[in-house]
Amino acid sequence: MKKSKEMLCFIQRKVYNLLMQRVKMVISYDGSDFCGYQRQKNCRTVQEELERALSKLLCTQVSVVGSSRTDAGVHALGQVVHFDVDGFPVERIKDALNSLLPEDVKVVSAKKVKSDFNARFDVQKKTYNYVVTSSLNPPFRKQMTYVSYPLDEDKMLECLELFKGKHNFKGFCSSAAQVKSFEREIMISQVKKRGDKFIFTFTANGFMQHMVRILVGTAIDVGRGKLSLDSVKEALETGERKKAGKTMPPQGLYLKRIYYKQR
Amino acid sequence: MKKSKEMLCFIQRKVYNLLMQRVKMVISYDGSDFCGYQRQKNCRTVQEELERALSKLLCTQVSVVGSSRTDAGVHALGQVVHFDVDGFPVERIKDALNSLLPEDVKVVSAKKVKSDFNARFDVQKKTYNYVVTSSLNPPFRKQMTYVSYPLDEDKMLECLELFKGKHNFKGFCSSAAQVKSFEREIMISQVKKRGDKFIFTFTANGFMQHMVRILVGTAIDVGRGKLSLDSVKEALETGERKKAGKTMPPQGLYLKRIYYKQR
Repeated sequence: MKKSKEMLCFIQRKVYNLLMQRVKMVISYDGSDFCGYQRQKNCRTVQEELERALSKLLCTQVSVVGSSRTDAGVHALGQVVHFDVDGFPVERIKDALNSLLPEDVKVVSAKKVKSDFNARFDVQKKTYNYVVTSSLNPPFRKQMTYVSYPLDEDKMLECLELFKGKHNFKGFCSSAAQVKSFEREIMISQVKKRGDKFIFTFTANGFMQHMVRILVGTAIDVGRGKLSLDSVKEALETGERKKAGKTMPPQGLYLKRIYYKQR
Repeated sequence: MKKSKEMLCFIQRKVYNLLMQRVKMVISYDGSDFCGYQRQKNCRTVQEELERALSKLLCTQVSVVGSSRTDAGVHALGQVVHFDVDGFPVERIKDALNSLLPEDVKVVSAKKVKSDFNARFDVQKKTYNYVVTSSLNPPFRKQMTYVSYPLDEDKMLECLELFKGKHNFKGFCSSAAQVKSFEREIMISQVKKRGDKFIFTFTANGFMQHMVRILVGTAIDVGRGKLSLDSVKEALETGERKKAGKTMPPQGLYLKRIYYKQR
């Protein structure tokens, strides 16, 4: 009796593994009305909305693993999640899920990947954008941050140059950041002027809590003449938060793209 | 006794006229949470918010006259209003009012103008923009309209060319439009591709209710191959609404700029 039960379980697992598909999904959302990406009690999150829609679609409890825990108010154009689905045709997931999801979160693409793909742990690098504007622009007040003072582009570029490479970024993250190491490598650190906007771009092998918002705040404090490049260098050398610039608000920040290791 | 009362009133009017200043104000707003520009009962409007803030600032009931009655969901970057203020320094109005206004409506500029300037009746021409995107983009879903089908830019340009000049636009406005004449003159009617966006621009001596949204809907129906240029020509000749294209949703529409007659 026991042996036949074991055999049944074995067969079930085999069948499940044959049917089981790991799905990598790129999603985009407006962070304005979310308490952030990661599920939490008594507060609306992106993960919760995704899992609710997926569980409804697949008639079973589904958990998703996301690459990045974006904060409240932070937008995503290319957040990546993975989950497992048993038998449902993957090519139908995008449209089916989009009809179940609320307006402020949508699936950009969904595809089958290798069963050991992990949206969180296989990340090679990430790109974030931050947008500031010098125009009082109410229709876009949740999409970019208004800055009333003039900014010197060259000074900001000098500051952004300092961030490139491997550094201890302890001075450039929230004191609440729970990490083993503060070392990160920044490959791209730049700003471009587009009309009345400055668009910042950062690509790194990882970011800590509030890191992009502090990098931008530091470049802006330098660009307005409030902070010296020497102070920024000190922040990088000593890890002192107060030597770096202010933390910018979340609404100008976009998780743009996640790059994965080639395997 | 009667004569001295008359004299007093005369002096008061003279003093009032000396102190009275007409102010022309450019304002910008996010139309998403408004029932439109014009004051109405039991529904939040831009005019109501402006008049509430102005009345608070100036300690007296103030009425504003706006150039355009934008619909619910329609944004403005350059709506113009006028009002009269008695003695308050005009150069302080912008900042003082912005501190009293809600986040979704702000003053861009305020300046003293001639006492007979009228924001509504002195309009020479207006410019509207409409933005559509081919990307599912939740952070910008209230700032542009998502179009899932491919659009032929050349075909749209051919269609937009037909709108230029003086025409009877009866076929291109809401049946609820209350106007004496349906004739309008369109000076600019164009579309430009910017990445995954199409940005439409229209400049005319006036627009009727829903007119820009129907002009864009018509160009889009032509651009996707659903409507022929002949049908558009017929709509212009006969004034038949059903020969023109669909009415686009309000959220991609921006009142960009109002031009006034030189006097």
